Order: sequence, then C-alpha cells, then structure tokens
Amino acid sequence: MASWPSVSSFCVDVIQKRNLFEGIRGELAAEVIERLAHSPHARVERIVSRGHASPPGFWYDQAEHEWVMVVKGRARLRFADDSLHELNAGDHLTIPPHTRHRVDWTAPGEDTVWVAVFF
Amino acid sequence: MASWPSVSSFCVDVIQKRNLFEGIRGELAAEVIERLAHSPHARVERIVSRGHASPPGFWYDQAEHEWVMVVKGRARLRFADDSLHELNAGDHLTIPPHTRHRVDWTAPGEDTVWVAVFF
Repeated sequence: MASWPSVSSFCVDVIQKRNLFEGIRGELAAEVIERLAHSPHARVERIVSRGHASPPGFWYDQAEHEWVMVVKGRARLRFADDSLHELNAGDHLTIPPHTRHRVDWTAPGEDTVWVAVFF
Repeated sequence: MASWPSVSSFCVDVIQKRNLFEGIRGELAAEVIERLAHSPHARVERIVSRGHASPPGFWYDQAEHEWVMVVKGRARLRFADDSLHELNAGDHLTIPPHTRHRVDWTAPGEDTVWVAVFF
C-alpha cells in the first residue's frame, strides 16, 4: 500500500503585495472597513467612504490611539469640542484614546480612501 | 499685592493635522525617517527616499512586524530569499519579524514617500 512520503513540517511566510486602491466595490451602501495587518497590539485598516458620514449623534470613543490619514479624496472630522479638521490627500492626525470624534462629511461621488492604525 | 487668579489645572489634547508631503527637504544626503505617531507597542513612520537604497550587504532584521506602503514614487524591496517586490503608489505589504530585507532601489530624481508601521 502506498504511503505518504515523510516530510518535515515547515512554514512559508509568503509576503504578499497588495494595493490600497484595488478591490473597491462599485456599490457602497455604507463605509467599508478592511483589516490590512494586525498583531495583538495594533491593527492597520483601510477605510473607503463615498459621501458617507457617521450616523447623526454617533461618536467614536475608542480605548486605543488612532493614527489616521486620508490617502485619496476629502473628508471632515468633528471632535466633541466641536473642532473640525478638513482632510485632503496626505493629511493625517493622531487621535488619543477616548477622544470622541465622528466623520462629519466625505466627498460625495468619489472614493475617500483612509489608512487607520489603531495601537 | 496682586495675585494670580486661581485656576483649575487642565489638560488640552491638541489634535494637530499634518500632511505627509510637507517638510521634505530640498537636499537629501540619505533616506530620511521621521516618527509620526507612537506608543509603547507601535510606531508610525514617514520615510522619504530619493534614489537611495540600503548600503551594499545591509539587511534589515527587525523584531517587530512592519506594514509598509509606498504612498508616492517607486521602490523595490529585496528579501533574503532573493524575491523582489516592485512597489508603486498604493502598494503595501506586511513583513513578519526577522524577515531579512533591504531597499534594493528607489526611483532616482523623485521623492518616494513611504508610511511604515512597526508593531
């Protein structure tokens, strides 16, 4: 009877290149958040908005730091002290833990692509 | 004698917006690495290359994960198994800890701007 060859177990770390602008759906009923990388201590996400904003009255209130950058498109963040930050391509900021904020506006009719790092 | 008014102590977390493409020097003798955000568990860096590559025979060998993206420009990474990854704007990949790699090439005569997250 044939038997499977004896093999040593091994791991291959395949390093896979992806592009931030690929795989964006034609229809976006809501903002789309996808994880690009993670460990127990941090995660990197891609967020795609197309005219979306946080629901009325909704505030993000996170335990982690967030570093966020608009890579493409335009957006406006509002903080609980009513300060506003207009973000164009390349604009980035760090949001300390438990700093309440919301997406006030993103450009309609185009994709706003963000990278967010939670740590 | 006039005295200072009594005030409660308070902290203001000033959230500061910056742009990834600002403050790039006219002359770059070597690749420039700047920290954009950090905590004990992670850091976000901007790297600007202008035709620079890792010195011959040099390999990065890091204890952390690295997620890296070329935001602008063009670059080529080489891994210790001799695999190559050509990176254009938006291309990103995750490098596991202790995966030896080097910057083999970046586009001459233009800025290649990277975001790297170590975690």
